[in-house]
Parts: sequence; structure tokens; C-alpha cells
Amino acid sequence: PKSVAVIGASRNQSKLGYQSLKALTDAEYQGEIYPINPNAETVGEYRAYPSILDVPEEIDLAVISLPSFGVLDAVKGCAKKGVKAVVIFASGFKELDDQGAHMEKEIARICNEAGIKIIGPNTIGLMNSYSNLNSTFAPMGKLPRGNVSIISQSGGMGTTLVAYLLEAELGFSKFVGVGNRANVEIADVLLYLKEDPTTKVICIFLEGVEDARRLMQVAKEVAEEKPTLIYKVGKTEVAARAAFSHTGSLAGSYKLYKAAFSQAGILEVIEPSELIDAAKAISILPPAKGEKVALVTHTAGPSLVITEVLERHGIKLSVFSNETKRRIQEAVPVNITVQNPCDLLGVAYVLPELYGIVGGIILEDSDVDALIAVYTPSFQPEVRLPAKELIEIAKVAGKPVVAALVSPSTLPIEEKSDLEQNGVAVYRTPERAAKAVANHIKYWKLRRTTRAKKGWAIE
Amino acid sequence: PKSVAVIGASRNQSKLGYQSLKALTDAEYQGEIYPINPNAETVGEYRAYPSILDVPEEIDLAVISLPSFGVLDAVKGCAKKGVKAVVIFASGFKELDDQGAHMEKEIARICNEAGIKIIGPNTIGLMNSYSNLNSTFAPMGKLPRGNVSIISQSGGMGTTLVAYLLEAELGFSKFVGVGNRANVEIADVLLYLKEDPTTKVICIFLEGVEDARRLMQVAKEVAEEKPTLIYKVGKTEVAARAAFSHTGSLAGSYKLYKAAFSQAGILEVIEPSELIDAAKAISILPPAKGEKVALVTHTAGPSLVITEVLERHGIKLSVFSNETKRRIQEAVPVNITVQNPCDLLGVAYVLPELYGIVGGIILEDSDVDALIAVYTPSFQPEVRLPAKELIEIAKVAGKPVVAALVSPSTLPIEEKSDLEQNGVAVYRTPERAAKAVANHIKYWKLRRTTRAKKGWAIE
Repeated sequence: PKSVAVIGASRNQSKLGYQSLKALTDAEYQGEIYPINPNAETVGEYRAYPSILDVPEEIDLAVISLPSFGVLDAVKGCAKKGVKAVVIFASGFKELDDQGAHMEKEIARICNEAGIKIIGPNTIGLMNSYSNLNSTFAPMGKLPRGNVSIISQSGGMGTTLVAYLLEAELGFSKFVGVGNRANVEIADVLLYLKEDPTTKVICIFLEGVEDARRLMQVAKEVAEEKPTLIYKVGKTEVAARAAFSHTGSLAGSYKLYKAAFSQAGILEVIEPSELIDAAKAISILPPAKGEKVALVTHTAGPSLVITEVLERHGIKLSVFSNETKRRIQEAVPVNITVQNPCDLLGVAYVLPELYGIVGGIILEDSDVDALIAVYTPSFQPEVRLPAKELIEIAKVAGKPVVAALVSPSTLPIEEKSDLEQNGVAVYRTPERAAKAVANHIKYWKLRRTTRAKKGWAIE
Repeated sequence: PKSVAVIGASRNQSKLGYQSLKALTDAEYQGEIYPINPNAETVGEYRAYPSILDVPEEIDLAVISLPSFGVLDAVKGCAKKGVKAVVIFASGFKELDDQGAHMEKEIARICNEAGIKIIGPNTIGLMNSYSNLNSTFAPMGKLPRGNVSIISQSGGMGTTLVAYLLEAELGFSKFVGVGNRANVEIADVLLYLKEDPTTKVICIFLEGVEDARRLMQVAKEVAEEKPTLIYKVGKTEVAARAAFSHTGSLAGSYKLYKAAFSQAGILEVIEPSELIDAAKAISILPPAKGEKVALVTHTAGPSLVITEVLERHGIKLSVFSNETKRRIQEAVPVNITVQNPCDLLGVAYVLPELYGIVGGIILEDSDVDALIAVYTPSFQPEVRLPAKELIEIAKVAGKPVVAALVSPSTLPIEEKSDLEQNGVAVYRTPERAAKAVANHIKYWKLRRTTRAKKGWAIE
């Protein structure tokens, strides 16, 4: 959008109208910003207007930072002004009671007539890192750009997922908190993201929708184009009931959803953090052409944990050929027992280049579809990680290579962004590395199955 | 120990002998430090000695930072010198081949005759935060003190667990990497920790042992005294085989281990990170007297995730009495649907004191055994969290109260240490909060069951 109005912009730090204006300006939004506040001449550094109708210029987006009872009037003003889209934070609509539902319908009617798209109500808003637009009430500075987009039906889980993205240093393209979906459905956002050039992977946090059939039809169409991942809350009985009372939407029979996801070629994950970890794997790594994993490590423990988590996810370890074993044994300067996980012992800690030599040999084995390199930089940032080696062998092999750099998140790992920009995904705990690889493999298996059913070529 | 010798202390940064000396000095060890190096007059700021026998003073602990072929000679010197304990980092012993096994036996024989305790070989070493002793090869500055102690059979998982501890800002009392256990078994360390006044909770990373019967007997005895948590690798077939080839110990039938843990009153967790999260809950929170959980939140999504994870762990939500519901409705200034999870909506984000009022009411309900307060400070450190309120109601109720402060780990939360020092455990993702509470409840249930079987009083 070229211009944004904040209706209810405030100087009071505890108000959404303060936070939402701050979110916009912190993100260094380059368009025009118009605070709307009848009781102030200025808000922040901006001239304020008593009403949106007093703004002399055109307004593309209006962020309505008002309590529920003020929204209807604000929307009427937006319709008159010819605003194209509104974000409505307030709760107290259909998720609360009949009166709220009635008010929401009226708002939707006005917006539909005026051709206004509604994000919300009962939402945290939306963000677009490529236009520096943070139209949520969560100021977070400049938005980090990336190629993952997120749709969340929950504001709280929306911020949680963004928090995971920030921790993963992954950035994002679009974030849309859909809230009550007064006239913009998850399906509509999916169709938009399908065409969005900066979106490569789509993550959905779903509670439940009324029109599950349309969502699934659209999702299937989108998933054929772009990897689509979902976390569905309400997998258990009590959680399903709680989700229902939250959005008033039928979380419905989880089994039906589950079957539909799989049919639509959508990868379902079990925990929210997996959504982001898997999105990273899929957005960074080349496709997994099969389902066998190899590990190379200088320390056994974490690779045993990875082995166990992989197995629990139904992923098998590669069996090295005799030729591979012989070549590895020759390449390592000490006596080791060559097997998978391939433990190079302490020598690889001091000679990280062994990861390149041995990892390269392993990746040439036809039974290996992906490689996890385990390294514990421990607590010392000055350790020389096998970064350039892993980048090099990943490039040559064209197979997924993941670095499990097991270390506290408080330890900066300078090589991380270099690795990830060059096609090697980095995780900092053994279990998250394992789950990400398992999900990556599952995704590509699902994709092969879906395409095979259609008679499409395997990529 | 009053004095530590580092045999093989080195100026070469890529050597263990450099890292282990640095680990000692970084931790600000207050005793005497003697680098042993035949080729240097000084190492770091210390006078070096050609042999341990040249040191004029007594030596309590010798850290042997040498490759495997140098260890036997070093141990002989230690025996002559009257050293009380040695840490042996080198691998290449019984876990490698018969020759290594033979060498390890010889080392053990010499040490047993001389009354020397061996930590290792094939270990990362040990740490004691209360004597500022870091006798590992992982320098990590001053050791943060706490009341959790860790025994790890794997060096790599040892550093991983310490990394989790650092992230959790939990500190620790003792860390022991037992390695090949030449003459100090996990059972021996357990008996030591049982009597250790600064150890309140014990965490074990186990691969497998030869004498599982003795371990279980001792562990049972220790677990009666102190909460004991375990992560056992080798729960799946392939992982079990890999663990066997790692330490040469029988990872053995996991089912037998599992049954033994439960009988011994040891809480088993499924993922390594749970070990630390659960240890935090158990060390900080009061006992859970029952198994019903209540949630209070200003945002529905994360509490739905928590509900689901709890249910998957077999933990049920409390059902509020009518009286509780009436009191909550009266206390909240807006119209809400009172249920569990109790969603106070956006009003609680701006009025965090509601967590004290409503949380206090909930904790008075007899069906509530633990409370999880969900709050998303999002990306703004200046948000006023309901910290003093949670501390206050936890104190009054004497029931476990957990704060799920869902936010990126990069966001500093100043109130965290205040909360945790005052009996409220903090977690930063919904799933980890849920698992920690589930494990806390499971632990106390297990303890009640174990004590009831013995006819002991319920605490």
C-alpha cells in the first residue's frame, strides 16, 4: 500500500493505537502514514486528523486500532473514503456472542459493498517485509525478509511463529493473521500467496473453518505449486473443543482434516516449532529424492539421539556400500569403525576438513539421500566449523545436507548465515535437526506420491 | 580439589591440552594449577613442569590431556605422585577395539591399586560449579551455580545438556561425563550426588551399562531421596544398535529399562531438552498434589497448543466449579466466556494485574492442581508482565504455577530470574511449557505411587 491510516492512533503506550503506529514506523514503512485521532494535533512525529475523511490524500489501508464498539463507525468512514483494505484488531465479535456476530456481519456487509478487504476482526494484523509494512500491534523493528509466508488463525500463535522465525534467523515474506475472517478467508490468502513471487514456502496455523471443503480444494491447488505446511490445533478431544469455543469455527473431526491434508499434498507437523524448522529445510535444501539418511559426526551421543528421532518418524538410515566404507577408512587418519552414523571421533573436531572429505564420500553412495553433519562447537565461538566443506559437498552432490551445530543459542555462530545462504540448513539441537530432516523427506515423498497419482513427471 | 595438574597442557589452540587449561582458568578455579609439559618452561601464565613428579606440591586431580597412547605412562606417574583422581579425555580404548580394551584394563588396574578414581576415558570430563572447577575440554567461563546435577554417558550429549542448561539460565551443581567408566560407574556418581548438599535434582543421559541391575538398585535408592530424571537413548531398534557399538555397552532391551525406571521411581523423558525443562520445574515448583491443570491467558492459540500437548501426555484440564466461574466473571471488566483455558482476551494484555486476581481465584478451586499462565510479551521488552502477581498467587496457593512467556529467546525478559527465584518456572514456547508441566505432574504421581507401595506417608 502507498498510504496507511491508523484509526485510533494514540500517545498512550498501553493502547493498541500506540503500538500499531509504532509497529509501522519501526518497520521503516516508506509510504504515507496518517494517524487518525480527534483529540490530538499530532501523534508521534505525524500530523493527526480528526477523521479519515479529513485526510486530503488517498488511503490504501486503514488499521483500525479501536475497541469493538468503535469499529462499525470507523468502517463506514473507510467506505466513504474509498479505502481498499482494513485491519481490525478488536475482539468481541462472532467469537464472543450473538450481538458480536451481528456487528461483524454488518461490518462485512458495508465492506463488501465498498469493495474493502477485511483482515480480522480479532486478529493481530498482517505484515509484508518487502514493503516494510508492519500493520500489527506488535512493533518489531525492520522486518527481516525471507521466502517463507505464514497464515495464522490465532494472533498469539502468530506472534509465536514469528518468534520462531526470528530465532531461526529465517525472515519471512508475508505474515497474515486472519482472525475471524469477516470477508477474507484462509483460502483467499492462499490464492494470493500462490502468485506472490517472494513466497516459496507457506506455513499455516489452523484451528478450523466453516468451509473446510473450499479450503482443501484451494490448498490442494496451491500445494501443487508451492510447498504448504500445516499445524492443526485440535488433534485431541479437549483441544478440539477448546478451539471450537475460541473461534466459533468447527475444529471438526481431526481425522477428516488429516486425511484431507495428505490428499492435498500438504505436510502436517505435530508441534508448532516443527512448522518453522521444516519450512527452513524445504526453502533452503534441494529435494530429497529418497528416504535414507546418513550421519557424520565427531561425537556419538547427539547422533544417536538423531537416529532415534528419525526412526520414530519412520525414516531409515542408509547402509554404506563396502566401497564407501573402504574409502572412508582410507580418508581418516585414525582407526575408526566405519558405519552409519559415521563417527570420526575427536580427530574431526580438530580437523573439520574431514567433514568435507568423508561427507563427500558418503554423499556419493547411492543409498544416501540426505546427510546430517553433527558438530558441537560447545561454548567457544572461535572453533573452526566445517562450513565451507559442507557448502562444497552439498553443491557437488545436489543432495540435502543439514548441519546440526549443537550449541547454546546464546553462542553466536558466524558461519550459520553463510551455510544457509549456500543451501545447508543449520539446527542447534539434535532433535530439531532430526525432525526437520524427517519432515523434509516426508514432504518430498508426499509430493512424489501426489504427482504420481496425477501421472505427472517426478521432478 | 585443592590442586589440579594438566598433563599435556599446551600452547597450541587446537589441542585438548590448551582447551582444558583454558577451561580451568576461565572458570576462575581458586586452587593451584600445574601445567605438565616437557617442552615448555611456561604455559599461559603458569610455570610448567616436565613431569607430574617434578611438581613440589601435592596434586589432587590430574587432567590427562593426551592422546590414548600417552595415557598409560601418565597414569603411572599419577600413581607414583599420589594423585587422588584423574580425568582421561582420550578415546581409543574399549569402545574401539580389543587392544584399546586391554590398555583400559591396565590403566584401571594401576589406578585401583593406587586408589585413584578415574573419570573416563573417552569423556568430556567433569565440572563442579561450587568449587569453580571445569575439568573438561570445553571452556565456558565461570560456571553458573544451580541445584541440578547431570550425569552423561556421552560427551557430545553432555555439552548439549549443558547448552540447554545455559539457555534455561538454570545453572548446575555437578556435571559428570562418565565416558567408558574404567573404575567409576554411573551408580557411583549417583551415590555421590545423593549426599551432595547442592544437588536437588539429578538428570541422567544413559546409553547402556553392563551391570544394569546394580545401576537400578542404586538409582532406586537415590531416587527415594532426590528427584532423578533420565533420558535413555536406544528406545528404537536402530538407535539401540548404534548405541551398543558406541560404548560397547549393551543398550539392551529398552522395555526392561523402561519398566525398571518406573519401578525405581525415576522419571523418563522422551527428548533430551525435556530433561532440563522438567528438572527446572521440579527444582523450582512445589509438588503437584494431583493431575489437573488450569490455564489463564490473554491469547487463545498458545493455550490451545498447550492443552493439546498436555492431553497427549495424559494430563487432564481442571473443570472449574460454578463458584469459581462466577468469581472470575465478576473480576473481569469485560464480557468473557469463563472456561478452562480461561481466556481473558486483550484486556489482560494491558491489565496484567488480572493474572493475579483471576489466577488467584482459579488456584483456590479444589479441582486445580497446577496453573499455567500464558502471556506473549511479543517483541517488546517494555511490556509489563504479570510477574509479581504470579509470584504472589503461587506463594499463597502453594501449588505449581508456570509462566509460558511466549517470545523469541532473543528478547530479554528481565522478570524471568525474579519469577524463577520465587517459585514460578518460566518457559518461552507453549510446547515446552506444556511438557514441563506434564513431566512435573508425572514425577509427583510416580513418587506418590512409589511411596504408597512402600507404605510410606504421602508428602
